[in-house]
Amino acid sequence: LVRGKTSRATRSILNNMSNRIITLTTDFGLRDPYVAEMKGIILKVHPNAKLIDITHEIEKFNIRMGAYIFCCAAEHFPEGTIHVVVVDPTVGTKRRPILVETKKGFFIGPDNGVLSLAAVKAGILNCYEITNPHFMLPKVSNTFHGRDIFAPAAAYLANGVDVKEFGRQINEITKPRFTKVISREGELLGEILHLDGFGNVITNIAAAQIERLGMSSYLQIKTSGQEIRVKLCQTYGEAKLGDPLALIGSHGYLEIAVNQGSAFGRFRTKLGDKITVTRT
Amino acid sequence: LVRGKTSRATRSILNNMSNRIITLTTDFGLRDPYVAEMKGIILKVHPNAKLIDITHEIEKFNIRMGAYIFCCAAEHFPEGTIHVVVVDPTVGTKRRPILVETKKGFFIGPDNGVLSLAAVKAGILNCYEITNPHFMLPKVSNTFHGRDIFAPAAAYLANGVDVKEFGRQINEITKPRFTKVISREGELLGEILHLDGFGNVITNIAAAQIERLGMSSYLQIKTSGQEIRVKLCQTYGEAKLGDPLALIGSHGYLEIAVNQGSAFGRFRTKLGDKITVTRT
Amino acid sequence: LVRGKTSRATRSILNNMSNRIITLTTDFGLRDPYVAEMKGIILKVHPNAKLIDITHEIEKFNIRMGAYIFCCAAEHFPEGTIHVVVVDPTVGTKRRPILVETKKGFFIGPDNGVLSLAAVKAGILNCYEITNPHFMLPKVSNTFHGRDIFAPAAAYLANGVDVKEFGRQINEITKPRFTKVISREGELLGEILHLDGFGNVITNIAAAQIERLGMSSYLQIKTSGQEIRVKLCQTYGEAKLGDPLALIGSHGYLEIAVNQGSAFGRFRTKLGDKITVTRT
Repeated sequence: LVRGKTSRATRSILNNMSNRIITLTTDFGLRDPYVAEMKGIILKVHPNAKLIDITHEIEKFNIRMGAYIFCCAAEHFPEGTIHVVVVDPTVGTKRRPILVETKKGFFIGPDNGVLSLAAVKAGILNCYEITNPHFMLPKVSNTFHGRDIFAPAAAYLANGVDVKEFGRQINEITKPRFTKVISREGELLGEILHLDGFGNVITNIAAAQIERLGMSSYLQIKTSGQEIRVKLCQTYGEAKLGDPLALIGSHGYLEIAVNQGSAFGRFRTKLGDKITVTRT
Repeated sequence: LVRGKTSRATRSILNNMSNRIITLTTDFGLRDPYVAEMKGIILKVHPNAKLIDITHEIEKFNIRMGAYIFCCAAEHFPEGTIHVVVVDPTVGTKRRPILVETKKGFFIGPDNGVLSLAAVKAGILNCYEITNPHFMLPKVSNTFHGRDIFAPAAAYLANGVDVKEFGRQINEITKPRFTKVISREGELLGEILHLDGFGNVITNIAAAQIERLGMSSYLQIKTSGQEIRVKLCQTYGEAKLGDPLALIGSHGYLEIAVNQGSAFGRFRTKLGDKITVTRT
Repeated sequence: LVRGKTSRATRSILNNMSNRIITLTTDFGLRDPYVAEMKGIILKVHPNAKLIDITHEIEKFNIRMGAYIFCCAAEHFPEGTIHVVVVDPTVGTKRRPILVETKKGFFIGPDNGVLSLAAVKAGILNCYEITNPHFMLPKVSNTFHGRDIFAPAAAYLANGVDVKEFGRQINEITKPRFTKVISREGELLGEILHLDGFGNVITNIAAAQIERLGMSSYLQIKTSGQEIRVKLCQTYGEAKLGDPLALIGSHGYLEIAVNQGSAFGRFRTKLGDKITVTRT
């Protein structure tokens, strides 16, 4: 970055001033002070952090929804971005605080699966359990690791602390069921990850898995106690107004939609419902 | 900006580090990953962009409300600010993606009227259709031009790409009905642009148009199937508690209010309702 | 900050480029343009301001809730941070716009108590009434001092204007009842400051006041027409699922909780309800 006639003094100033992107994803909402507290802590350690909110409206304790939203957003950020995700229903228990180094950036949060979809997609390089108290608040509460452990870890990492300083390397991180799709006899078994603000029902089934099912442009879908046959479309407008359709959404996952309507209103889908897909 | 003994190396670093303000206005909400995806894309192209959210809570597909909120906010930003507005019910159809250069800044979004109120107020200089694929994502979806076209356009513009590079110049942008007030025989015909969080009903009728109506300090107002005579006040407190009044709001438009109450609750006004105003 | 061989030109550029943190807390919500207008005004005066939202979802006109949320968040920000708080039901009346210099940072807002909890905690050094029109918008409205007075004051302060320039020094700022707890005969009389998104009921009674009450690990609590005896716990999990408990929350105030449930749903608590606490 800094070359030529620039003096050492200038160089060091410039390095300190360089923004480092830190994203935040939580289920805290924005009405309470919790998110702002995390931001204050980060800025105390690294005043030039560039803080970007992914969302704070994950349904409380819904790891599956957090994992999906975070995964969609994270892949679009620059290399080296530091991501903090706090959907943490078992805070204060034995679940580990982790730091995952991937080919695309750094993921910090509880080891409960909320980082897994994104981490696998980004290409995991190394995983660490965060245990070094030097990079935590002096007093760690039982109820708010977002502020006391994850926020300072992100800020110190942005400051240039080496990943190995945070704690011992670990071999595996938790990869829950919703990161896996079962394929058997021309049938895919997945689940519902997210119901978006436009009424779309988004599954954990990836485009490539649908392709391997066969050539038909119609899908037979069983979910939430219902069974429908829908066309696999390119755009919402291919179906008639109010008619259901399937498509590969802008994040590469199969979704069920209703043209200009709400698919989850129509099918009464809930987060986590199972879904079975065949091509007919 | 950079003068004196500063070396060329330092100068170039400083220029790259300079923040450039990019604002975002959408109807995406903050629960889904869509806004964060736009931010990630912008930061990949221009890591020092200074991202400011105007709002993401425009009612879905409500171009009129988007146009009003954006217009109110945009006028307060520094010259040269780049504004991205995505309220885009006809995404994927023939409606054009546009870039509007004004005396005050740059406006990027769909050519459906959502930019018009603000663009006219800021003083339109030149309009361009965004067609150059070099400044879009490699693959443009049919459903998410905010991420695939508008966000990268803003980021490349912030990076110094000339407005002429984005596509051919066009003569006109869409100016829908809600940007116009009809004046006839001492009567103004407008419509309701916004119902704010304090209960105020905000019209598209500007202060100057009210002044031209005459000298009386009372207005006769017909809207939403009702007819009332109200005083044109300077502050909410001039009316009795719970009584209706009219005033020129802080953005220069006529609004109907109830002192410490909700005008749209009382009059059952809806967005887009017509309104007729005379002075009596 | 800037030393060694760095030229004067570089130094001055670097100083101008340095971010200055300005936080915003309001009851405006994010659907209307009001918050964005304040941000635009600040960036016009100080383009490198680092704007951090604490929250804009304070219940409209609820000074008590604003004071509490702001106090929780403010203490975690770096020294020198400039905080703007606008919960301002009496805007346009005689209540004074104030600037409070504390040991930890600068607090700007209406003198109605919304700054008091945080200001006292941070250690008040000097208070000023903001009266100098040079640091306001040219035209100050009766309804929106957040944009016309408080935002520009914060931006000029960030620009290096001395606190004494904003107006005359004043001796006292408003400290309303909710900043005070009454202690008598082994009993504490406080009130309910906040009902958080996790269902917890948060009081204005500080940890030290509870300690002075005695040694028992059980509290007798009267509030909202009910009387309960609960254990003073360290974590939510010490109580049975669905059982009430008391604890000192992560901000140092007594709170009433229900393990994995909603305490304010159960006790029908409202903001501002009185609470009496004894140890038994």
